[in-house]
Amino acid sequence: MPPAHPFDDDKLKEECGVFGTVGVSDAASIVALGLHALQHRGQEAGGIVTHDPEQGFNSARRFGLVRDNFTSEKLLNTLPGPIGIGHVRYSTAGSKGGTQIRDVQPFFGEFAMGGAAIAHNGNITNALQLRKELIERGSIFQSSSDSECIIHLMARSMGRNIPDRMEEALRKVEGAFSVVAMTRTKLIGCRDPLGVRPLVLGKLGDGWVLASETCALDIIGAEFLREIEPGEMVVISAEHGIQSHYPFRPAKSRFCIFEHVYFSRPDSILGGQSVYSTRENIGRELAKESPVDADLVCPVPDSGTPAAIGYSLESGIPYAMGIIRNQYMGRTFIEPTEQIRNMGVRLKLNVNRALIRGKRVILVDDSVVRGTTSRKIKDMILDAGAAEVHFRIASPPTAWPCFYGVDTPQREKLLAATMSEDEMCEHLGVNSLKFITLDGLYRAVGEARGRDASCPQYCDACFSGEYPVEPADMLEQGFRMKAAE
Amino acid sequence: MPPAHPFDDDKLKEECGVFGTVGVSDAASIVALGLHALQHRGQEAGGIVTHDPEQGFNSARRFGLVRDNFTSEKLLNTLPGPIGIGHVRYSTAGSKGGTQIRDVQPFFGEFAMGGAAIAHNGNITNALQLRKELIERGSIFQSSSDSECIIHLMARSMGRNIPDRMEEALRKVEGAFSVVAMTRTKLIGCRDPLGVRPLVLGKLGDGWVLASETCALDIIGAEFLREIEPGEMVVISAEHGIQSHYPFRPAKSRFCIFEHVYFSRPDSILGGQSVYSTRENIGRELAKESPVDADLVCPVPDSGTPAAIGYSLESGIPYAMGIIRNQYMGRTFIEPTEQIRNMGVRLKLNVNRALIRGKRVILVDDSVVRGTTSRKIKDMILDAGAAEVHFRIASPPTAWPCFYGVDTPQREKLLAATMSEDEMCEHLGVNSLKFITLDGLYRAVGEARGRDASCPQYCDACFSGEYPVEPADMLEQGFRMKAAE
Amino acid sequence: MPPAHPFDDDKLKEECGVFGTVGVSDAASIVALGLHALQHRGQEAGGIVTHDPEQGFNSARRFGLVRDNFTSEKLLNTLPGPIGIGHVRYSTAGSKGGTQIRDVQPFFGEFAMGGAAIAHNGNITNALQLRKELIERGSIFQSSSDSECIIHLMARSMGRNIPDRMEEALRKVEGAFSVVAMTRTKLIGCRDPLGVRPLVLGKLGDGWVLASETCALDIIGAEFLREIEPGEMVVISAEHGIQSHYPFRPAKSRFCIFEHVYFSRPDSILGGQSVYSTRENIGRELAKESPVDADLVCPVPDSGTPAAIGYSLESGIPYAMGIIRNQYMGRTFIEPTEQIRNMGVRLKLNVNRALIRGKRVILVDDSVVRGTTSRKIKDMILDAGAAEVHFRIASPPTAWPCFYGVDTPQREKLLAATMSEDEMCEHLGVNSLKFITLDGLYRAVGEARGRDASCPQYCDACFSGEYPVEPADMLEQGFRMKAAE
Amino acid sequence: MPPAHPFDDDKLKEECGVFGTVGVSDAASIVALGLHALQHRGQEAGGIVTHDPEQGFNSARRFGLVRDNFTSEKLLNTLPGPIGIGHVRYSTAGSKGGTQIRDVQPFFGEFAMGGAAIAHNGNITNALQLRKELIERGSIFQSSSDSECIIHLMARSMGRNIPDRMEEALRKVEGAFSVVAMTRTKLIGCRDPLGVRPLVLGKLGDGWVLASETCALDIIGAEFLREIEPGEMVVISAEHGIQSHYPFRPAKSRFCIFEHVYFSRPDSILGGQSVYSTRENIGRELAKESPVDADLVCPVPDSGTPAAIGYSLESGIPYAMGIIRNQYMGRTFIEPTEQIRNMGVRLKLNVNRALIRGKRVILVDDSVVRGTTSRKIKDMILDAGAAEVHFRIASPPTAWPCFYGVDTPQREKLLAATMSEDEMCEHLGVNSLKFITLDGLYRAVGEARGRDASCPQYCDACFSGEYPVEPADMLEQGFRMKAAE
Repeated sequence: MPPAHPFDDDKLKEECGVFGTVGVSDAASIVALGLHALQHRGQEAGGIVTHDPEQGFNSARRFGLVRDNFTSEKLLNTLPGPIGIGHVRYSTAGSKGGTQIRDVQPFFGEFAMGGAAIAHNGNITNALQLRKELIERGSIFQSSSDSECIIHLMARSMGRNIPDRMEEALRKVEGAFSVVAMTRTKLIGCRDPLGVRPLVLGKLGDGWVLASETCALDIIGAEFLREIEPGEMVVISAEHGIQSHYPFRPAKSRFCIFEHVYFSRPDSILGGQSVYSTRENIGRELAKESPVDADLVCPVPDSGTPAAIGYSLESGIPYAMGIIRNQYMGRTFIEPTEQIRNMGVRLKLNVNRALIRGKRVILVDDSVVRGTTSRKIKDMILDAGAAEVHFRIASPPTAWPCFYGVDTPQREKLLAATMSEDEMCEHLGVNSLKFITLDGLYRAVGEARGRDASCPQYCDACFSGEYPVEPADMLEQGFRMKAAE
Repeated sequence: MPPAHPFDDDKLKEECGVFGTVGVSDAASIVALGLHALQHRGQEAGGIVTHDPEQGFNSARRFGLVRDNFTSEKLLNTLPGPIGIGHVRYSTAGSKGGTQIRDVQPFFGEFAMGGAAIAHNGNITNALQLRKELIERGSIFQSSSDSECIIHLMARSMGRNIPDRMEEALRKVEGAFSVVAMTRTKLIGCRDPLGVRPLVLGKLGDGWVLASETCALDIIGAEFLREIEPGEMVVISAEHGIQSHYPFRPAKSRFCIFEHVYFSRPDSILGGQSVYSTRENIGRELAKESPVDADLVCPVPDSGTPAAIGYSLESGIPYAMGIIRNQYMGRTFIEPTEQIRNMGVRLKLNVNRALIRGKRVILVDDSVVRGTTSRKIKDMILDAGAAEVHFRIASPPTAWPCFYGVDTPQREKLLAATMSEDEMCEHLGVNSLKFITLDGLYRAVGEARGRDASCPQYCDACFSGEYPVEPADMLEQGFRMKAAE
Repeated sequence: MPPAHPFDDDKLKEECGVFGTVGVSDAASIVALGLHALQHRGQEAGGIVTHDPEQGFNSARRFGLVRDNFTSEKLLNTLPGPIGIGHVRYSTAGSKGGTQIRDVQPFFGEFAMGGAAIAHNGNITNALQLRKELIERGSIFQSSSDSECIIHLMARSMGRNIPDRMEEALRKVEGAFSVVAMTRTKLIGCRDPLGVRPLVLGKLGDGWVLASETCALDIIGAEFLREIEPGEMVVISAEHGIQSHYPFRPAKSRFCIFEHVYFSRPDSILGGQSVYSTRENIGRELAKESPVDADLVCPVPDSGTPAAIGYSLESGIPYAMGIIRNQYMGRTFIEPTEQIRNMGVRLKLNVNRALIRGKRVILVDDSVVRGTTSRKIKDMILDAGAAEVHFRIASPPTAWPCFYGVDTPQREKLLAATMSEDEMCEHLGVNSLKFITLDGLYRAVGEARGRDASCPQYCDACFSGEYPVEPADMLEQGFRMKAAE
Repeated sequence: MPPAHPFDDDKLKEECGVFGTVGVSDAASIVALGLHALQHRGQEAGGIVTHDPEQGFNSARRFGLVRDNFTSEKLLNTLPGPIGIGHVRYSTAGSKGGTQIRDVQPFFGEFAMGGAAIAHNGNITNALQLRKELIERGSIFQSSSDSECIIHLMARSMGRNIPDRMEEALRKVEGAFSVVAMTRTKLIGCRDPLGVRPLVLGKLGDGWVLASETCALDIIGAEFLREIEPGEMVVISAEHGIQSHYPFRPAKSRFCIFEHVYFSRPDSILGGQSVYSTRENIGRELAKESPVDADLVCPVPDSGTPAAIGYSLESGIPYAMGIIRNQYMGRTFIEPTEQIRNMGVRLKLNVNRALIRGKRVILVDDSVVRGTTSRKIKDMILDAGAAEVHFRIASPPTAWPCFYGVDTPQREKLLAATMSEDEMCEHLGVNSLKFITLDGLYRAVGEARGRDASCPQYCDACFSGEYPVEPADMLEQGFRMKAAE
């Protein structure tokens, strides 16, 4: 079960991936494949709900990977029908004592006019307030998930049909949400007004597909039609095709720029551009902004790879795999002995000693969170005899937590929240350390004039501290915004 | 359980990795780590044997990966002691109906002077003859493995001690063997006279380590001392250190050249050189031998990567990740439905469509076995809109089966056994297809003057059909050597 | 997993057992032991909820037996605290497609004033109507269980504290219920006004215990204080001890008489009398009512044993174990081959051939439901060479389904619903067949003057068709009461 | 996994049951059923070997119960063919650190003329000597089982066919053995010259069956033909039917008398008599030898039941179930907390308090081994308010260990080895304690004149210390025979 990055515990984690399909012959298999392609967005657990005219709604929710849980014919046969949705999750909002199976989406609710299931990517920033109010009115929550609010708001809505109820519910929630939902016959997709999280629409034979990323269309050979727009809700049925609504007050789009840097898969297309190419551009920008004389450009595998290639192409310094990742590493080294635990790093990565010895090495990584991993990697490279180590980071300093669906440490734990770039360089003990600038990053994603400070084109709160939606629950819990510091 | 290559079923498979240690405080953990680093040499099953003065010999043998079986404190506590050996296996010689747990090494035997365990990498080419003779004399075989012969030959030896018995036994077996064995106090390592399979010696604190590759020394922080020489047997004990013997008739070394091309890990050191660098050299040689005008050089992930980097560096054509591998793929998609099975390729690989469209693409792969995978990859690239596809292969055409410990298809199934390079190019439907020449490969591994046809420096039987040891059992079963064709 | 009777599929099945404790040092272990003693009341699944001042509410729900799920230190450590409740269940009301884990009790709800958990033994006869109304008002049901209504009614109550809310909720439900519930500090027990299902109160050190039967007090060495009275609600806390309420309109008690015949364990005490002795009395009454000249009295193991002993003592005919039960039979013969399936009976029972041959045998069984088992047993006995077979049944003919918490077949499937005693005798092919009379049964349970037809002392609807509570949901689904026939 | 007796740890344990069949359509299912019926003879593990003309030999060996391992269609399909044997085991001779799967029978060996499998009930008293000699000659043992000697002796035999080799092997082993073996076409059964362990022959359609007890014939509807005679070897094939040999020097039969008392199932037939009836006779003899004035005769469930019935019938004192066994108890309470462990007895047994209070109770048990259980039961009965407790034991004092296939504690641990009957009575703290006499036991099994002291009709070494076969290995390890004391 290889994580996207060998130092899992020092990375920001995308919380979720969502997928849905309607009008196909065997929805469950399609959903399973889609979720497999979205596995990088959440490895902790997954779930699928389908509906069949004869057998009604069926669901399966499991801890672990899609490939381990949702591929057997036996299981898929318990999920019949031409319509289905699915969800993979990492934990964000959830119970303190670890996720329980009841926290695993999709969530299902039976209403007077029939059942509905929803899967949510993002985070509802006023969930605690909503939860409190709903409990006072007699709702019983089954999970500790913020997303469960939506289904309770739908249950209490006076709307005559489920899409109406969903509109009403979503108008009450704040924050980031890309939602895929289903009734007996309708597949529904909706993005919040700022469009913080991605959601795309595809065509598969006579049917349709909604997915967090285009890579989930590719796996099933679906055609990529377009992105769902910020603030748009689509209702899709085999009978009536696609109907589009805009239930929210219009707002300027603020897509999460970190999706470009790290979360999305390199073979996905975001804003019309290959994510891989964007990351290569980031590397090129980095090389322009922060050149250094060296012998080799090496990625920190695997997520630093495209930026390292870009850095090499721009700088002319040869690209090489100085660090080799053990392909058989996985989450399942769960009960290591003390002895093994203390050898942590070597289990996952090894330095190509014969290659590195005596060389001046540029290491390209996607981000620095706590900095613990960067130190270990620097140690490995120096132990192997490198002459110099230069870190180049494909994102600006991560100094603020995300409240829109990404699992970030508390602010104090973020290295960049307490240190300048120079201090970090000294702290890590490397010859140089350079982050790409915010403007450089905006150029790399295609904004030729860089960031529009008066009205940023993206959500970049984790770098800038400028939160496009006020995090109501967090403020109540004492979080201090930038202006308040 | 990610295989080293996404198209597992169209690759040659190394059969085994071996590891042993003596003079350490907790041998089992050390062995588990070593086997984890050697996992690419065998993913089907693994086993560990240790000895403790008070608790005697203990063993654990399991199907599946090291990380899933040999990492819990509970299990490792059942394997106490300062000496131990281990084995990971793919299947080569084995039972028809699939490997059984009794086929999993190390094998153990209790002799009059005490117990011994052995782990074997390679293949015994006269195993069937030996087995028949041993059964007639009253030996009872527990497995279908060729390696079990060794322990029965040792049991029947008149030798006074176990190393003597092992020498006597190994003098009777033919073929390729790198063996790691243990008694209550001694760790034994031995390579066949030709040294077909690798075996290295390391130092860990006050103790010693034997391993198939140096990457298994790195994971535990052991120092690489030297390779065990072809035909050498070392007997190591905490008390007497290392003693070296040469029990066999001297012969010229014939190390397996495919270890350089594919089997060994890129961060291992073979013959004093980084495997990664050798593979980069192969790419450079390929670029010199078979240049072509193109826009991008893309590896077939992951094994084609170093050669693709070399090709790019030599040719100046930009390197890019045109094919993205799903990190969450594994062996455990075991019961896919018909629908999923038919979508095979997309589960594992996806093309970076936005990058590839309209480009002339050079694809670098390590080898072509049956050719089934190469066709699928070509289809994917063309579907994504590539203008041209040029295959460059980092090994010569694989036209002969290996009988020395590698799982190869029957000769008829090897594409290169029945087609010329041009025929293969047409069969695969690509714009060009070029293999590295045998001489080019020899240059890349450091033989400046190429292959010495009168007395090749390596075993290259899979390319040349020149077998350095006559495969006795196979000949009896009707295999026809090159001279006989 | 030995069922209480070897022909599980031809027995009425008690649906549930409930247990709770407060004021003890380790509630979870106590609850686990109590549930183990009540396992005969439900083998399909079980659950435990506890509360700890520091760690809040915790729960575990599992399919399978208590001994297999709730005995490990690891699990019990996840359920800390001095108060807890538990539930074992067979299925009665539940989802069509088999019970799901979300159907397993206790159910938990978080209210404005804190959480509560409930466990229910019985059946709510107006559950479907209540469910429909609650859904219309926005409640989301998580299970298909009738018992979930109670927690939703509590959530919507305006009551200031949880016991008040529970009173309000229980006043709205109809049918049979013995409920054990808990808040953070209070253990609550309540029986419906007719007291159809049992519930007893015990003292354990400084703490208290509620349980379905006294055998669950014995296992933990608790002292049996008294039965909870029909219509009584007790609220017990470590601080305030026991407080007793009577929230319902008073009614005459109608305890389930089948608890005496079959459901309760023979070592439990019901109405001041050992269940074992009551069953022995039933056997004695049977011998008086329906004597027959024979050589041996044999029980159908194991549930017929006490009545057979009573029959033997009264008649003077020797008691013998003519049928031997395989102790290793269990539910887990789940996937037998066709060949094994067809040998069904012999897997579980074997006749003591040498003993039976040529004898006139009286077989004592507790009840006849479909009659399928009785036929098989008769065949076995005759195959073994018995001269005569006489069935004596320790209950009157079961002719009506139970709607108060017992899993009975539809009326048409009950042998006694369509045949007279003589017709059944002929159908079964035995020399004689006699059921105890209703009056005889009442005498055996201690009503010296038999049944009071104007106002029966027990619920005997399964024999008489006189239902003490109108089964509202069933009537709506078309069930016809006796008067309507 | 309910043991035959609730205090497993204070009982003698039969070590094994064996079963074989030939000439049937699906041997594996037949063997599985037979082993299920013999489960009381060994619950730790089981194994089945079959042979099919096309698919050769196949085997499956598993820890746990037959019902949990050998009932799925999937597994049974891996064991095709018309001939098969099986084995269930408790541990006797075996590895110190717990049984390993390699110790589980049947054992298989491949000889020059083909394969053979054997299953052994009993114990080889010179196994250690044989093992030492075989190892010196080059045999490699795979298990720590005494039974493996047989297959190695067969491998080294010069016999031309397998039955000849088996004869030669069995002539070299000493002790008790009932062996079932198979070749590709022949089913072989053999009992040692004294016939210590049982073995019976049955007919099933056109095929034959060998089994430890007749209850294993009943479960499949096979006809009981006869017992295999002491010293007889039968070779059975579909083609040639049954051939009988007597390879050993003739000796007087010494069948294990404890099979009558406890090991065999009550519905089996031994020596022409129902075991149940024999045990009832033992109870009658006890009542004659040791009458006492009392109110109730209660069995210690379940094994004391037939003798208690006999005692009641002879004495006229009413029989009652004063102690109730929890049907859901099993081996799987494996990880109990300290708290649960300390409540040991109540988990398994409960006293029928309302029945026992104030009564003088006779408790009938089958044997006293260490006496630990008897004390606990006495405590339970007195706690429940019994006026008097009288123990009556259905076997003589167990004062000597068994070396013929029964797991007994060391001599010092046997209560009767160090105390007289009166001392034991005082030690247990009961009003009286009486064992049946040896002569009484012999009368109960049908020897009207009791035991022939000059030449006992049975093996009763555990009572008398008179061992019919000298226990060679044990003597070498220092065991002192009675004469030597």
